[in-house]
Amino acid sequence: PEEARRTHARSYLDTLTKPLGSLGRLEDLAAQIAAIRPEFPTLPLSKAVYVFAADHGVTAEGVSAYPSAVTQQMVFNFLNGGAAVSVLSRAHDVELHVVDVGVDADFADDTGLLHRKVCRGTRNMLHVRAMTDEQLARALEVGAELAEDAAVAGHTLLAVGEMGIGNTTSASAITSALTGSPAALATGRGTGLDAEAHRRKIAMVGAILQKHFLVKGSPSPLRILSCVGGLEIAAITGMVLVAARHRIAIVIDGFISTAAAALAVALCPDVRGYLIAGHRSEEPGHQLLLDYLGLTPVLTLEMRLGEGSGAVLAMPIIESAIALYSQMATFASAGVNEASA
Amino acid sequence: PEEARRTHARSYLDTLTKPLGSLGRLEDLAAQIAAIRPEFPTLPLSKAVYVFAADHGVTAEGVSAYPSAVTQQMVFNFLNGGAAVSVLSRAHDVELHVVDVGVDADFADDTGLLHRKVCRGTRNMLHVRAMTDEQLARALEVGAELAEDAAVAGHTLLAVGEMGIGNTTSASAITSALTGSPAALATGRGTGLDAEAHRRKIAMVGAILQKHFLVKGSPSPLRILSCVGGLEIAAITGMVLVAARHRIAIVIDGFISTAAAALAVALCPDVRGYLIAGHRSEEPGHQLLLDYLGLTPVLTLEMRLGEGSGAVLAMPIIESAIALYSQMATFASAGVNEASA
Repeated sequence: PEEARRTHARSYLDTLTKPLGSLGRLEDLAAQIAAIRPEFPTLPLSKAVYVFAADHGVTAEGVSAYPSAVTQQMVFNFLNGGAAVSVLSRAHDVELHVVDVGVDADFADDTGLLHRKVCRGTRNMLHVRAMTDEQLARALEVGAELAEDAAVAGHTLLAVGEMGIGNTTSASAITSALTGSPAALATGRGTGLDAEAHRRKIAMVGAILQKHFLVKGSPSPLRILSCVGGLEIAAITGMVLVAARHRIAIVIDGFISTAAAALAVALCPDVRGYLIAGHRSEEPGHQLLLDYLGLTPVLTLEMRLGEGSGAVLAMPIIESAIALYSQMATFASAGVNEASA
Repeated sequence: PEEARRTHARSYLDTLTKPLGSLGRLEDLAAQIAAIRPEFPTLPLSKAVYVFAADHGVTAEGVSAYPSAVTQQMVFNFLNGGAAVSVLSRAHDVELHVVDVGVDADFADDTGLLHRKVCRGTRNMLHVRAMTDEQLARALEVGAELAEDAAVAGHTLLAVGEMGIGNTTSASAITSALTGSPAALATGRGTGLDAEAHRRKIAMVGAILQKHFLVKGSPSPLRILSCVGGLEIAAITGMVLVAARHRIAIVIDGFISTAAAALAVALCPDVRGYLIAGHRSEEPGHQLLLDYLGLTPVLTLEMRLGEGSGAVLAMPIIESAIALYSQMATFASAGVNEASA
């Protein structure tokens, strides 16, 4: 992002008919958009959400309340319009793209699904690296290519989401490996584990970290991805990296997509300025990642659903910030007295 | 609200294709709407915001960073489409009604303004009661009648906002009188006072409370309104009372409109269930009122603008909650496996 444009936007915001700074976070968002885009965008924005789906070998260890088959079932639900992200995309005029980057199932051609399967899910990271270097490269490329497509399509605001039973276990391991936080702090209840299953999941994440990152020193972002990542997570990392290069603002969602974005920032720190945290998830590791990234979420609604739902829900707020910046009168144009010094 | 309908809505939410409770506050909002409305509303909702404007005699004491003339100037700005609430209403398809209930200025007939002036502002509450009983009754009636009009027009979601230079001083006095909090906690910087002016404002609110509520015991809500209220505040109290009777959900905005709503609840506790707190203002007294009402705000965006801006901005989130409730697939209809026990 261009800091000179952000500074200019801040000065302009101070001329609008409102007490200084009284639009709070909306002013930050408008200034961020100004810094990101060479020209301040006109409304309505062209918005899209990409939901990447993949399966996880670690589900063999019983880390989720749901069976792996739900990944495939939810892909159909996305396509048929019945999932939360489908409803929210329709409500807020956001193009929904569903991407199979590694679901352990076959899909017919004519469903609207974007077929980008790298392989039928990761391997069990408790025992082996989740993916090979080649699989990682291909998954990153899936996201990167779709970001190119989004840029060509003229989208100015992207949301990223995911579906993959077992992927909070990946996100917890990534969070620990990236931030140094212990597994117990980075591991939550996912889709709804009870206390005993939660304890087992924490132990599992600890064992996974031991297995892959025993050597002292910080593992590289790509090593983290290949050892404990997921195909959908790698695809989001690839999309975030390339979308930022195209000066597209990217709304990240909850714990998993933020883990993917944090890896993108670890690879390329400039990417951070293109990220908007759509919401704060109830997963405890999400706050660790938001702190790591220095991002304040737009919404705090106690959601923990994934799919990009929180990111899409933040879009009308972000568009509101843009509308206020573009359409409010100034003190001068409206003939309103300014505050006394 | 009807608790049986809320319970039924909660059960239905648990059948939708998402982990139990994972839509967080959106589930609370959908269940609240279900409890409020005899039939669950169809989308798009018919939405309106009423912005009540009035002046305050206490501005003679220098409690605001802005001159009183700004009340009138901002009314023109609302009508001309350049104010924050104008922009947000357009963006989210919300009918904007601007009501002169007590501005110290004359307006022409043909501006779209709703002419309901009770008198040209309150008297200086540092020395006398802000309004007479008759003025109070008429201001309440303004809001009540407009709520009747809104019900006839078929609106299902109302937002209330205000404009009145000096009215955070009223809201602080109301908050102290109603909740028992000391003036120092209930009094903020309003539109932007410096530290010294803030100290003076706290002392002013303390003196106002001393003047009117010296006798032990809690003053009645109507006594609070007439002694330290504002005409716009009384009108909002009247609107909230009557809108609730018509089973309309009411989105309250920041510190001032919440003070008005808290007085309505003090008069009629059942009203509380019809209120949605649109956002949490940066004014410190707002949290005291939200705690008093037991409400959790939809948005927390560090806004402190008033005008109904935070209430209107919450509307797309509330509509999203309704869309999710109405349009999501169930586990059964989508053929998705439920969580294991």
